[in-house]
Amino acid sequence: MPSSAIQDYYPDDVAHCYGCGKLNEHGHQIKTVWDGDETVTRFIPKDYHTAIPGYVYGGLIASLIDCHGTGTAALAAYRAEGREFHTQPSLRFVTASLHVDYLKPTPLGVELELRGKVIELKGKKVISEISVSADGEITARGKVVAVQMPESFLKGDTL
Amino acid sequence: MPSSAIQDYYPDDVAHCYGCGKLNEHGHQIKTVWDGDETVTRFIPKDYHTAIPGYVYGGLIASLIDCHGTGTAALAAYRAEGREFHTQPSLRFVTASLHVDYLKPTPLGVELELRGKVIELKGKKVISEISVSADGEITARGKVVAVQMPESFLKGDTL
Repeated sequence: MPSSAIQDYYPDDVAHCYGCGKLNEHGHQIKTVWDGDETVTRFIPKDYHTAIPGYVYGGLIASLIDCHGTGTAALAAYRAEGREFHTQPSLRFVTASLHVDYLKPTPLGVELELRGKVIELKGKKVISEISVSADGEITARGKVVAVQMPESFLKGDTL
Repeated sequence: MPSSAIQDYYPDDVAHCYGCGKLNEHGHQIKTVWDGDETVTRFIPKDYHTAIPGYVYGGLIASLIDCHGTGTAALAAYRAEGREFHTQPSLRFVTASLHVDYLKPTPLGVELELRGKVIELKGKKVISEISVSADGEITARGKVVAVQMPESFLKGDTL
């Protein structure tokens, strides 16, 4: 069965992101899929991804929100164009800005669920709101402003 | 010579943060020091901390800003109390919210410099603005709202 995760269709030239690149063997390799009108990523932190013992490091939460946001943006952009996300030309987004509110400590040792909702899609910009839950409780909320990557990036040119 | 980095004086119970804990052998172990009225952290990303090849992953930049912000908050709180930061009781901050604007791609392979300025210090809350530079050019700007960690955390109690 083909993958339903957008990251599995990022072109190889831009599939090395530490957060979500399928070609980064050191990285988190998150996978973002549609669930109705929301997007979902699930991730189990390592025991060393700690803030204070027993709780998840805020930088990891920010990282997951960041890559979930760019994945959400790409999924939404394909859907807006009425295209399947394995079709060409590829749509790949980068982060213009990231905001995270840490509502309460996020426990380590359980799977985290990130859920994204697109709140604006206009031209090459997609804004999404993202929640992070652990054990069914929302522990952080984020907002990601993502912009479509210039085509030159996709061709492997220098910036 | 004693260390001038705030993280070297975090109590052992709360020195496991992946971003800045001296006791996290997997983590970044950043070190934040005063430079006049600004705070400074320097960090060289690994080659796998990549976004697209050649550029630093945004999640790492967010993580560095996060921990530089809590370190800046602790340094500023000690200074506001007229105390050296190796004295008791310990002051340790956690992040309430984090904002990052990615201004341009951050090149890999060079040392990053984060500089922080305290823009508000009131009660148990410290807000700082942070710049990230590579090769002398600012590539990202952040804002961290940090709050003093409840004393119960420092005693190793559960939350």
